[in-house]
Amino acid sequence: MSTHTPPGMDRLAIHTITLKPWSLRKAVENYARVGAKGITVWRDKLGEMPIPEARDMISSEGLEVVATCRGGFFPGVDAETRQKGIDDNLKAIEEAHAIGAPMVVLVCGAVPGQPLEESRKQIQDGIEAVLPRAIDAGVKLAIEPLHPMYADDRSAINTLGQANDMCEGIGSTHVGVALDVYHLWWDPALEAEIQRCGELGALYAFHVCDWLTPTKDMLLDRGIMGDGCINVPEIRSWVESAGFTGMIEVEIFSNELWAGDQAEYLDRIVHAYQTHT
Amino acid sequence: MSTHTPPGMDRLAIHTITLKPWSLRKAVENYARVGAKGITVWRDKLGEMPIPEARDMISSEGLEVVATCRGGFFPGVDAETRQKGIDDNLKAIEEAHAIGAPMVVLVCGAVPGQPLEESRKQIQDGIEAVLPRAIDAGVKLAIEPLHPMYADDRSAINTLGQANDMCEGIGSTHVGVALDVYHLWWDPALEAEIQRCGELGALYAFHVCDWLTPTKDMLLDRGIMGDGCINVPEIRSWVESAGFTGMIEVEIFSNELWAGDQAEYLDRIVHAYQTHT
Repeated sequence: MSTHTPPGMDRLAIHTITLKPWSLRKAVENYARVGAKGITVWRDKLGEMPIPEARDMISSEGLEVVATCRGGFFPGVDAETRQKGIDDNLKAIEEAHAIGAPMVVLVCGAVPGQPLEESRKQIQDGIEAVLPRAIDAGVKLAIEPLHPMYADDRSAINTLGQANDMCEGIGSTHVGVALDVYHLWWDPALEAEIQRCGELGALYAFHVCDWLTPTKDMLLDRGIMGDGCINVPEIRSWVESAGFTGMIEVEIFSNELWAGDQAEYLDRIVHAYQTHT
Repeated sequence: MSTHTPPGMDRLAIHTITLKPWSLRKAVENYARVGAKGITVWRDKLGEMPIPEARDMISSEGLEVVATCRGGFFPGVDAETRQKGIDDNLKAIEEAHAIGAPMVVLVCGAVPGQPLEESRKQIQDGIEAVLPRAIDAGVKLAIEPLHPMYADDRSAINTLGQANDMCEGIGSTHVGVALDVYHLWWDPALEAEIQRCGELGALYAFHVCDWLTPTKDMLLDRGIMGDGCINVPEIRSWVESAGFTGMIEVEIFSNELWAGDQAEYLDRIVHAYQTHT
């Protein structure tokens, strides 16, 4: 990687779930210690202290809240289930507003056996139902297209092309895309769709990690950048060519990495950010 | 499924690997017993007896050899590795010819970390290198696009659109596609690409199984039709609308199903073929 130009440390953000064993406070203190400037807060951490207190703590450590994770899961087999999804997303928008996050990442949802077309319609309906409140709160909604291996029960939106289509269909300045290399690296249309996403003004977030060979668990075996087969610097170059200048968010789920020493793991992340991102 | 019209039993074919614990002889005898008319022979079974003997045994039980599995794995980091891939495919073509199979299914290959574009070029080069021998032998080559979760080390061809593109690029009457619902069910372009594949005259094979929720193993946890989220009858209707009248091949890899009583499992396959295919 002799020609690799690392991104500045001022663009490093880390998800709370990446260092899942740590409390929000411990994550914030350590992310700040290693020079990260951003944090994406998963909602399971919001119960650890009152949200205003969390907001102050994050701010006083010099970190910016990039997003909260996650809303979504709009599809359901009946209206009552779908309304519960909408209610939860309204709650997520309030929480994002309260903690000072400019966006909520959406894992859009799917129902096993329900046609994906139908789930996509329910996703669009759900986003449109909560959109007025998001606009009022100044919180953007970032559709995260998920890898096709999650099309059964996690998301009916599985390529950047589909996410772009939905953003176009909704046509709001408050609905865009969270692009995660893990989900999209394989797609031959990726570079073109990143460009299109930029032109739509919809490129809201950029998540990095790596795809391990072999992958031992479909959900919880992601790798640190450089440990797998994804050319993260190339995808970053496409994202930046499309005009993205925001935070680069490290989002890793890994039973193996969570089982080890978390401070060492955080050091590995920082090193990988500087050498393989 | 009250409106479901089952396919005729004369179109039921079963892969040897589906009943992996059985020898080739036992598979052939049992497939014939339950009324299947076709068998796709995996190459690991070819060592159990001389190929002419296997051919005669299959024929005498009234079964047709639909294909052999598998060739492919063309990409490699150096010319020597790629030549080994070509040599193995030449061998696969000879074996297919010897057992009377009209085609070899190709799992095209990928090399972790090698750009997918480069692997695709090596795949096309490899197919073109063995194509003259395939034509001489009267054996067709069926590119099987694999699910994107196998893009790291099994195949750089991950959608039917890509497989169609490659067939068009090669432009031979002996290169087409093996379409497996497991790999492609999630793709919003599937119906259109099936139609295109039919128009190209490239729709050579149709493989069925199901996608389980949750999927516990990325390779060996496929389900029987009807046990998962794939609408197999709908995809079959698209395939038939595109002109396909060939065998419907049941290809299931499952540690769980292989661990149980194989005769009962075969009965479940036949039932699922008649009710959920």
